[in-house]
Order: sequence, then C-alpha cells, then structure tokens
Amino acid sequence: MTDPLDPATDRRPGGRTARVRAQVLDAVRAELTEGGHQGLSIEGVAKRSGVHRATVYRRWRDVGGLLVDVIEAAGEIDWQPPDTGSLRGDLTALNQEIQDSLVVQPSFAVALMAASFHSEQAAGAQTRLWADRYAQCEVLVERAVARGELPAGRTDAQSLLIAATAPLYHRLVLLRAHPDPQLPDRAAKAAVLAAAAGAFSVSREEDV
Amino acid sequence: MTDPLDPATDRRPGGRTARVRAQVLDAVRAELTEGGHQGLSIEGVAKRSGVHRATVYRRWRDVGGLLVDVIEAAGEIDWQPPDTGSLRGDLTALNQEIQDSLVVQPSFAVALMAASFHSEQAAGAQTRLWADRYAQCEVLVERAVARGELPAGRTDAQSLLIAATAPLYHRLVLLRAHPDPQLPDRAAKAAVLAAAAGAFSVSREEDV
Repeated sequence: MTDPLDPATDRRPGGRTARVRAQVLDAVRAELTEGGHQGLSIEGVAKRSGVHRATVYRRWRDVGGLLVDVIEAAGEIDWQPPDTGSLRGDLTALNQEIQDSLVVQPSFAVALMAASFHSEQAAGAQTRLWADRYAQCEVLVERAVARGELPAGRTDAQSLLIAATAPLYHRLVLLRAHPDPQLPDRAAKAAVLAAAAGAFSVSREEDV
Repeated sequence: MTDPLDPATDRRPGGRTARVRAQVLDAVRAELTEGGHQGLSIEGVAKRSGVHRATVYRRWRDVGGLLVDVIEAAGEIDWQPPDTGSLRGDLTALNQEIQDSLVVQPSFAVALMAASFHSEQAAGAQTRLWADRYAQCEVLVERAVARGELPAGRTDAQSLLIAATAPLYHRLVLLRAHPDPQLPDRAAKAAVLAAAAGAFSVSREEDV
C-alpha cells in the first residue's frame, strides 16, 4: 500500500520500481512546466529521465498515462490544510498557497490545467485530485462551526470553499490579472462574510 | 468606424471585406468548437469558409490572428447586461448566461479558454474581452447602490462581479462538475450577502 506520508513512495514502496517512477515523474514535471503538454512525449520523458523508452511505454503507455500518474502523485503528497485558529486565517493561508502555485513562472499547476483541456484522462485525474483537496479542506469549516464562527446548522462546506478560492483561479488563470498581494485575504473575507450571513446554509431557505 | 450595434459589421461596414470576414470567422468558430484550437489551421478555415487561402493568410497571417479576430468579434456583439430590477436577479441572470455558454456541448467559450493557454495573442484578446464585459457589468452594481441594495460608500464592483461569477467557471471549467440548475442563483446570493456585509467596500477597513 502507498504510504501517504512519503511523497517519493510508490505502490511498491522503495526499490527499483519506485525509483524509476520518481525519475520519470520528475521528468514529466520538468517537461510539462517548461514546454506545456504539447511538448510532452514518451521519447522526451525517457531521454530526460534516463529511463529506457521501452520501460516508459510499457508502464505509462502514452502521454495521457504520464499526465494521470503525475496528477496522482501530486495527490499522494502529505498535504495538510492550514490551521491558523480562524476560518478567515485558514482560507487566507489556503488562498496564499493557491496564489503562489499559480503565479510562479513557469507554473506546473497552470500547465496541468491547460493539459486537462486536451486529455480526457488527465481531466479525470485532475477532477479526482480537486475533489480530494476540497474534501480535505472541509475540516476548516468543521473547526469554524466548532469555534462558533459559523451559524448553527449545516453549512455546505464545499460551496464555501469554492466561493473562497474561485476568485484566485478566475483572476490569475482565466483573466490573467497581475497577482494582488491582498487578494488571498480579500477573497477569504468575502466568503467568511457570506457564510456568516447564511449564504451556504444547507437549509431550504433560498431567499435572502 | 465599427458600428457596435451590428454583429456582422466590419471596420469597413458592409461590402465584400465584411462578408469575407463574416465567412472566415464563422468557419473559425465552427472549427474551434468542433476540434479545438489544435485542429485550427489557415488551410482548414480557408476550405470551410470558401475564402481563398491567400486572402486568409494575407489578412489574418496565422492561427493566432484568427483567434484574436474571433475574440474581438465576440466583443463587437451588442451584448447588454441583464436588468431584472434587483442585484441578485441581475447576477443570477448573468450567471445563467455564463452557465449556458459553458455547458453547451461543444462549447465555443471553453474552446476559447483552452486556446488562450497556447496563444499569447489569443490570451491578450481574451483578457481585453473579459475586462470589457466586467466593465459593462459595473452598471449592475451602480443600479444596486441607487436602489439602496448595497451599503453607502463605494463598492469595488469588479470584485463583487468576480465573486458572483467565478464559482461558475471554477466548477464547470476547472472542476468539470455536472451543471447544477441552482448554481447561478446560489453564487449570486452568496455575492450579494457578502456585498451587503461590506466585503467589497473600497474603504480601508480590512477587518471583518
């Protein structure tokens, strides 16, 4: 079984298989970040990783297989959501991580999003990764409810998390705006105010 | 000058130039929607449009030129932001339009976003189009202030509009979630509640 605490782990931890996978995925990340998915090829990855082409073909089959595995490997990293003591602080820290990953040049995160428009396999793997990350972050909302920061009754944690984080992706990836150092906190603040006003309540009241 | 009220217009309105442009851009839209930007070529557009290849080359130069012009043409359409009588109604109607454009299969809007990851020119044109659309939508916020729906003092209209619309793009384009018929209204409601609580106030108070 995978040890989720070790980012370099493999389904068969340690040993040659794990080392080969680590070499290949390092090469995929580098090729993807530098040249985008359009420059990604089994040949290029084999050459860069020093792993035999036949091995790469056998294990990953095609570019889609490489993309899926590099996304799954990202999901195996021991990522933990922030824990700052307040919902706004947690969401700001989360947004800061997101902003950092999107504005770094070149950005692996943006390259993966671009690739997902062109590979059904990569899109599926990325959808699963997002779903896992948002599920992990639901604890931020649970803690906020326990601290009395959110109104009683169930809050739709995913809607709150998406409201907090979506403006970062929208501005930086789709609108290609210049990064604003205030944005992580501002987007967090807006989501917290909306949540406090009951915007994400699970109750059936749809009227403001 | 361009007549912005006529979507079929050209910089030289009427006449052969405008007709050629309309034919070529119809072909670009069709090729892009069916096969994505990776399938887009001067040759394919010339063939589909019935316009001579040399004419397409001379006027649009390359795929980047075709993408820029098709995005600029989208900006020339006489689009008007909704006017329903309430901020929540306006934002819901806006979100409904966005959702419709993103969930239609195949989606021209999604194809343009994908293309913008691969063409600096297309990305620039799309950034200008988004900026124009958000600027047009600022009137929704002005009307809401005039109706007394938003607190006195200036509201950062663009931040409010992005908060309202970003969850649609995030869920449908990046997370590839199934469309939720309630989402346009829910995202509008959350933004309105946040705005009413002062989340987008331009004042210097950053504390909740």
